Amino acid sequence: MSIKKVAAGIDIGGTNTVFGLVDVDGNCLSQGHVSTNPQNGSISLFENTFKGIDELIASYDSKLKLVGVGVGAPNANFYNGTIENPVNLGWGVVNVVKLVHEHYKLPGVITNDANAAALGEMEFGNAKGMKNFIEITLGTGLGSGIVVNGDIVYGHDGFAGELGHVIIKPYGRKCGCGRKGCLEAYVSATGIVRTALTLMAKMMIDSELRKYNILELTSKKIYEAAMSGDIIARECFSYTGNFLGRALADAVAAFSPEAFILTGGMTKAGDLLFNPTKESMENSVLSVFQNKVKILPSGMDAGNAAILGSAALIWHELHKN
Amino acid sequence: MSIKKVAAGIDIGGTNTVFGLVDVDGNCLSQGHVSTNPQNGSISLFENTFKGIDELIASYDSKLKLVGVGVGAPNANFYNGTIENPVNLGWGVVNVVKLVHEHYKLPGVITNDANAAALGEMEFGNAKGMKNFIEITLGTGLGSGIVVNGDIVYGHDGFAGELGHVIIKPYGRKCGCGRKGCLEAYVSATGIVRTALTLMAKMMIDSELRKYNILELTSKKIYEAAMSGDIIARECFSYTGNFLGRALADAVAAFSPEAFILTGGMTKAGDLLFNPTKESMENSVLSVFQNKVKILPSGMDAGNAAILGSAALIWHELHKN
Repeated sequence: MSIKKVAAGIDIGGTNTVFGLVDVDGNCLSQGHVSTNPQNGSISLFENTFKGIDELIASYDSKLKLVGVGVGAPNANFYNGTIENPVNLGWGVVNVVKLVHEHYKLPGVITNDANAAALGEMEFGNAKGMKNFIEITLGTGLGSGIVVNGDIVYGHDGFAGELGHVIIKPYGRKCGCGRKGCLEAYVSATGIVRTALTLMAKMMIDSELRKYNILELTSKKIYEAAMSGDIIARECFSYTGNFLGRALADAVAAFSPEAFILTGGMTKAGDLLFNPTKESMENSVLSVFQNKVKILPSGMDAGNAAILGSAALIWHELHKN
Repeated sequence: MSIKKVAAGIDIGGTNTVFGLVDVDGNCLSQGHVSTNPQNGSISLFENTFKGIDELIASYDSKLKLVGVGVGAPNANFYNGTIENPVNLGWGVVNVVKLVHEHYKLPGVITNDANAAALGEMEFGNAKGMKNFIEITLGTGLGSGIVVNGDIVYGHDGFAGELGHVIIKPYGRKCGCGRKGCLEAYVSATGIVRTALTLMAKMMIDSELRKYNILELTSKKIYEAAMSGDIIARECFSYTGNFLGRALADAVAAFSPEAFILTGGMTKAGDLLFNPTKESMENSVLSVFQNKVKILPSGMDAGNAAILGSAALIWHELHKN
């Protein structure tokens, strides 16, 4: 009877924490979830999560060997193995790698969700074989995981890769970070809703979007309106792609990546988002890089992407050694 | 009698090519130069340069052992070991590493001057011990050498690190690259001259700079006027530092470097340039990075910096293995 090696992947969200067992080929053999309940503290969450992982492993009746635990979490510091003062969770500093080691006597690795997504893409998805690429995650905000020479750019303090907070429009829209003109104030699920408001103010044409209570307007509704041909909704994606493409052109000058990989809910819009992004990047980029850099969708199953990315943290470390 | 190991460093400029012998501690033992004369072709230049290096070595009467040849040149491709279609030199593709190997049977390494400067700084200068930092070279243009995880970011095609061509002002000044709003159109020796013209148009105050024939206005004259208290000249440095600081803040979000190291003629202005740059960076940077990132001057002797940087290419490769 052969024993299969698996890495556990944990993704900590504000509401739910998901986990699963992933083999070296990126098959998610089994998965589960618990409520994050941040108010109960981090120790409680990790106890519940480890219990869930233990049960998954036990159900395989000694046929699995766990090799490590990868964790994707907000405000994660790769170097320290910690989650540090995550605003949305209300914790202080949590030494996750220590908790993993105490429970499993195995290596733990932690980073933010965008870096985990990049490693997932490199191990299992559309960045297989790439040594230089950038993962862009489009959710409520804009995250990025930057790979240079086959490894994540963590920078001096562990917090590199914040392309959502480069200034794409000086003195532009206020951002959640307190500054003005950040890329994620334009290119994100919340950014595109703000763009819809801007365009409804600017344009006089009728639009399905005008029928909504503003607080109910979401990127999904803009997408649906765009798919049904709504002109303002389609323009929202052009506008978003224009900003994103210009930011990617700047990133090309710095990093010369082989590809950008876009992931997250908004990328379901497909060509509506990818075409104006590609056009804007090519129009903006330094000529030496023209028609050289790919823009690709994620190659990971969206349902398991967070678990695959977190587990990839472990496989990536093992492949390095 | 002990034999000392040296690396040869060659820096190819549009007019002059300088070369020298550098030991592992960054002592430049001996140096020389030849006219580049690009119209005579690359082969002629390398023959003359190798002859010069051979003479330097011969003068040490077998007390030196050459370990490799590093070359800093425009349009250099590290991966291919080539200079590729340098506009100012009028050559096609020159396989420099092959020429080095044919003459010396030793390793050759080539990159552009900004990357060489970064490696020089890491081996011999103010970035000793740093694994993540960014060298900014301020000359006619703005070059950058980016170090991540202890190595230069070359990117997928070898041409990464072009921070001079990130867009700092959308639809702004025309740049030599053909696009608009590039950082180097503002922050460089030519950029500050354009700033002087802008400010003389905008401000009504008297200035020494108004006395010059416009074609004779240089960054050096602006510096001299600023040092003698000229208000517009001083404002030129504030304006330049403001743009540079905002660009550094964006680079911090992406790379989280330990430090920026500024080098090149304009940095002789010292506080006149460094203070507004630092102030602008701190005002612009994401709060998690505030007061964390140093801005330092070069730690290399300006007279030998180009030779030291090129020779550092060899010492860096040897230290990696």
